[in-house]
Amino acid sequence: MYFLPQRMKPKEYLVEKCINFKGASAIIYLCLKFLKNLSTTKTDTVLYMRVIFCGKFSTYFHLCSWLWQKQPSYNHVYIPRLVAEGKTKKSSGDFHLDRLLPSTGWVRRAWQLSEDDLLSSTGLDAVVFMRIFTFSVKVFTVAAVIGIFILLPINYFGTQIHASDFVDIPNKSLDLFSIANVNDGSKRLWVHFCVVYFITAFVCYLLFIEYQHISSTRIAYFYASKPQPHQFTVLVRGVPVSRLGKFSESIRVFFMEYHSSTYLSHTVVNTPSRIKSLIEVPAAFVSFKTCYGAAVASDMRQSDNPTEWVTEQAPEPRDVYWPFFSPSFMQRWISKLVVVVLSIVLTVLFLIPVVFVQGLTNLDKLKTLFPFLKGILNITFVSQVITGYLPSLILTLFLKIVPPIMMLFSSMQGFSSYSRIERSACTKVLIFTVWNIFFANVLSGSAIRQLDTFLEPKNIPIKLAVAVPAQASFFIAYVVTNGWTSLSSEIFRVAPLLCTSVKNCVGSHDDEAQSLPFHSEVPRILFFGLLGLTYVFLAPLILPFLLAYFCLGYIVYRNQLLDVYEPRYETGGKLWPTVHNSTIFSLLLLQTLAIGIFGLKKLPVASTLILPLLIITLLFNEYCRKRFLPVFESHSAESVIKKDRENENDPTMPEFLEKLPTAYRDPALKPNQEYAGYRDHNTPLLSSV
Amino acid sequence: MYFLPQRMKPKEYLVEKCINFKGASAIIYLCLKFLKNLSTTKTDTVLYMRVIFCGKFSTYFHLCSWLWQKQPSYNHVYIPRLVAEGKTKKSSGDFHLDRLLPSTGWVRRAWQLSEDDLLSSTGLDAVVFMRIFTFSVKVFTVAAVIGIFILLPINYFGTQIHASDFVDIPNKSLDLFSIANVNDGSKRLWVHFCVVYFITAFVCYLLFIEYQHISSTRIAYFYASKPQPHQFTVLVRGVPVSRLGKFSESIRVFFMEYHSSTYLSHTVVNTPSRIKSLIEVPAAFVSFKTCYGAAVASDMRQSDNPTEWVTEQAPEPRDVYWPFFSPSFMQRWISKLVVVVLSIVLTVLFLIPVVFVQGLTNLDKLKTLFPFLKGILNITFVSQVITGYLPSLILTLFLKIVPPIMMLFSSMQGFSSYSRIERSACTKVLIFTVWNIFFANVLSGSAIRQLDTFLEPKNIPIKLAVAVPAQASFFIAYVVTNGWTSLSSEIFRVAPLLCTSVKNCVGSHDDEAQSLPFHSEVPRILFFGLLGLTYVFLAPLILPFLLAYFCLGYIVYRNQLLDVYEPRYETGGKLWPTVHNSTIFSLLLLQTLAIGIFGLKKLPVASTLILPLLIITLLFNEYCRKRFLPVFESHSAESVIKKDRENENDPTMPEFLEKLPTAYRDPALKPNQEYAGYRDHNTPLLSSV
Repeated sequence: MYFLPQRMKPKEYLVEKCINFKGASAIIYLCLKFLKNLSTTKTDTVLYMRVIFCGKFSTYFHLCSWLWQKQPSYNHVYIPRLVAEGKTKKSSGDFHLDRLLPSTGWVRRAWQLSEDDLLSSTGLDAVVFMRIFTFSVKVFTVAAVIGIFILLPINYFGTQIHASDFVDIPNKSLDLFSIANVNDGSKRLWVHFCVVYFITAFVCYLLFIEYQHISSTRIAYFYASKPQPHQFTVLVRGVPVSRLGKFSESIRVFFMEYHSSTYLSHTVVNTPSRIKSLIEVPAAFVSFKTCYGAAVASDMRQSDNPTEWVTEQAPEPRDVYWPFFSPSFMQRWISKLVVVVLSIVLTVLFLIPVVFVQGLTNLDKLKTLFPFLKGILNITFVSQVITGYLPSLILTLFLKIVPPIMMLFSSMQGFSSYSRIERSACTKVLIFTVWNIFFANVLSGSAIRQLDTFLEPKNIPIKLAVAVPAQASFFIAYVVTNGWTSLSSEIFRVAPLLCTSVKNCVGSHDDEAQSLPFHSEVPRILFFGLLGLTYVFLAPLILPFLLAYFCLGYIVYRNQLLDVYEPRYETGGKLWPTVHNSTIFSLLLLQTLAIGIFGLKKLPVASTLILPLLIITLLFNEYCRKRFLPVFESHSAESVIKKDRENENDPTMPEFLEKLPTAYRDPALKPNQEYAGYRDHNTPLLSSV
Repeated sequence: MYFLPQRMKPKEYLVEKCINFKGASAIIYLCLKFLKNLSTTKTDTVLYMRVIFCGKFSTYFHLCSWLWQKQPSYNHVYIPRLVAEGKTKKSSGDFHLDRLLPSTGWVRRAWQLSEDDLLSSTGLDAVVFMRIFTFSVKVFTVAAVIGIFILLPINYFGTQIHASDFVDIPNKSLDLFSIANVNDGSKRLWVHFCVVYFITAFVCYLLFIEYQHISSTRIAYFYASKPQPHQFTVLVRGVPVSRLGKFSESIRVFFMEYHSSTYLSHTVVNTPSRIKSLIEVPAAFVSFKTCYGAAVASDMRQSDNPTEWVTEQAPEPRDVYWPFFSPSFMQRWISKLVVVVLSIVLTVLFLIPVVFVQGLTNLDKLKTLFPFLKGILNITFVSQVITGYLPSLILTLFLKIVPPIMMLFSSMQGFSSYSRIERSACTKVLIFTVWNIFFANVLSGSAIRQLDTFLEPKNIPIKLAVAVPAQASFFIAYVVTNGWTSLSSEIFRVAPLLCTSVKNCVGSHDDEAQSLPFHSEVPRILFFGLLGLTYVFLAPLILPFLLAYFCLGYIVYRNQLLDVYEPRYETGGKLWPTVHNSTIFSLLLLQTLAIGIFGLKKLPVASTLILPLLIITLLFNEYCRKRFLPVFESHSAESVIKKDRENENDPTMPEFLEKLPTAYRDPALKPNQEYAGYRDHNTPLLSSV
């Protein structure tokens, strides 16, 4: 770990980072004591002493917030959605003692809710989000049973570690449960081989079922929906400059010419310029009389020049991201490229500024910079906090700002909707996490040497096979500290609670319920899935911890979706392909590791026999891409025509069509009291920071 | 060269192969004498003795065929298209002495023809094919001027080769003209650096102009065309089984349901089974009343299940490839994967069977196998022919069967049209040629070591930089022998002449004019373009030879397109994206080589400064892909609607629409005399072998 102060081990470091900042509950404390009992060397003792210190502090803090949670004065922190929907009062002001007793009612309520109820109250996106948890629980229940009852005994009764290195056993007691302890060339390794095949088959089967279920739910959801503006509208970009210099006129002429029977109206997009006047942008929302008309216009290339009259399905009106309507095809394309480069640079070079800032804040440097603090810095407690706490705090702060930065990058890519931006940011954060938490931890050595490894692809399996199992205990601690504590801070809403407390002092109030930040939550959940699948046959001890994470997460997020978060948009489950692709990547990583491990363990036949599995997994992914992905990209002719026929019988249609031309009215053109809302739209990224 | 008999050098080998089989004209003979004067070592003398021997033989042969060409009895060999179109008599039978005098009239005629004339007489595909030559002539005129007048003197006045190795100068006299002779670290290398930048910019500029010109020609060609069946028709595959078990009924119901206003008729595809009865395939040609109707149906996903009701633009009726209508989505997908694997295997492992067969046919083995031939084999001339001629003949024969094999592979991929199959085969043959002629020659060592090189990407530039310049003289000889002779054998039509002579003896005649075999011709031309761009700054001596090839080719193929080949289909220039991509690949290869060369020549700054150029080239390609490629994939709404309006005023439209339902009638259902034609369709691949 090149970004750590020299004295610290990576395990020690990240555990502390997570614990310190997030806080930990009493359960975590017990679990870490169990881990501590397994491995009791001197450095580990120091580590777990710190963990206990932080754990205690966090437990008290969380307990307090648990009690606060039941006080109506914090309703807008813990049930803001219900407050916003007017289902409960904001605050009664009174203090009741019985509210200090903990209750488990919310757990029962979150558990009993059916998927249909969730769908009707929170939309399909939330349902798809929850299916990540049900999918993961299914996978890791089976994996944990196999891991604990089959692989763990095999690993434990091996003698490899005793044979090779019998002095240092206490230090490696966790390794006794990993594949490292199985003897080289042992026939028992074939059990591990079978597990790799079985897990791949099982996960692929579940992936197929999920994709099928979600895509058919998506179609049913479309059929069942009321007529909505975005179903009748396309976004047109690259409108060529007309002779009159007015985009509006040339749009009307074009669509009257080529879509005369279905064209209804259009709204040209404006952006406010610096001098407060509005500038027309060569983009417009064009509405049609039927869904079919809109679908045809968005699916077909409109103009002979492919860079003009570029159409796409319009987002929902509430989902439109107004600020960045870049004028031309070329500008959009260049900004997209710039963003890709920036994201790669941020991902690869992220650790360099972290190390630099960490280097600035060591005790000696501080003493030189601020000589007047020398007295305070010499106190043992203060110096302990600075050496132990500050580096991890810096890393944590840097990690915290990554999702907002990625959101900012995605918003510059020229996407027209907030949902598309968030989905793109989600992918970027996921890649960032996998690279900086998994690979940077696993592969030791300098950044340049890591790049070297990836320029020699055939060495990757072996290098990973050496490095990954060695980090098993670190990642177990990571799941406990980062995963479990993130759930507890999610349910106790630490950050909003602090914000509200500060605001209460200042006297201002902000009642708007926020939407679930998919771009920071989904990557974390998917990363735990990756950890689980990667370690399933290497060190199965991680599986119960992960299973607990997913079970807790299932309850916690169901509660949050019902009470806390207000959906900001509805994409009909477009998130799932990201989840699918991430899981396929995890499977490929698992197989690459298996190839390396069996090579190291002197079972080259098994190593070779994994290759067909790798190819089959790729083929499976390709098949799913053909079979299901188009459903998430556009609606079929069959769907939209059926929908149009249903709409014909809908008595609200005339009224709906009457309102349609104003659905995409630019917020900047609305009266003043609504203009505040526009300014909110204008700065969503700052508010999400 | 691992596939050669031990004694032979690669240069010697391939020159001989090409010369022996193709024959060479007197000009080639002189050119090779010039090359011989440049490098006169002992082994080279042996080589060029052989060349002269073969060259003489070929010259006589070609002279004979030139004379024959003027005899009307060979009209169906030299002007089959005119014969087929009835513009000239097949054979008069008389012999006239004045016809023995050579004429140059055809050169003037081919030269004077304007592009519009060519377009009207041979279609857009032929025009696009000819634009490969005009494009290449422009590129290599500029490149040759720069190469000969700027780079060649700089190279010649360097002293690197004298300094490093002054004993062996005669053997390396060709290298004196290459970049190898410029001193390491010399500032003159910056001239080469500028040339790399200039050539890239110039080629990109030309590529852009060409793409723009061809795409606008394509659109204009569509507007100017008469109404044609394929503009009104889509091919539907994956028709689900109806309750009645009849596809025809379920197709009618589906399109009446969802395209009631534009649907006209449909024709279900049948394939003949082994027991002579017809089997309905779940595919159909569905015709519409307007182009727009067909375009909408082909651009939109039709069904909620993306693997059912899969639509695509129909090919022309004459272009439909009937034999392989694989029933299901899954089968088509699997056969495609199998074909991809087979093509890769053929490309990578091609040289293994060649070496094996070559090993079987050496003199000693033959003596053991056929003891009774011992007397004949001991004759010096026979043994010379066998040792010198047989290995190259075997390689040539193996190379000759590659294009038909690739055609066979492509036909198994489930494409619906002959044009699509040929385009796919064209790409496959191109990749095959680049790998087996360029890389296999350039990189010495075993096949496995080559693969190793490509698994370590960062070593590629250096390895190529060492290997490629060393092969300059070999590739000059390759251009002369393979390129020039292929043109001469094209104009003299050696193979058809022999076929006809044989058939004349047997007494059968086949008057059908063949179409230009794009899949074997285009890869050769593009490969010469790759050679030229690769060697432009390494060894500019190759450029005049290439320029001569492209100038000759321009005249020869214009003549062939007018008189010999009958277009089998018209795709509207869909070939050009392949040409564009191939040229971009050549530029990237040039830049990769430049990175390696400047590294070797101790000018690392130049090496680094090439990197931005590489990225800019990739971006340029990406931009072209967005800007022009869609034009080649489908027609825009604007195009088809304008076309429909024009058609409304066309008096022939009612008659056309009346005939439309029968345009895609299965040849198997036509009366007997037409069934012969069907059998031809059924075996196009055997006839093209």
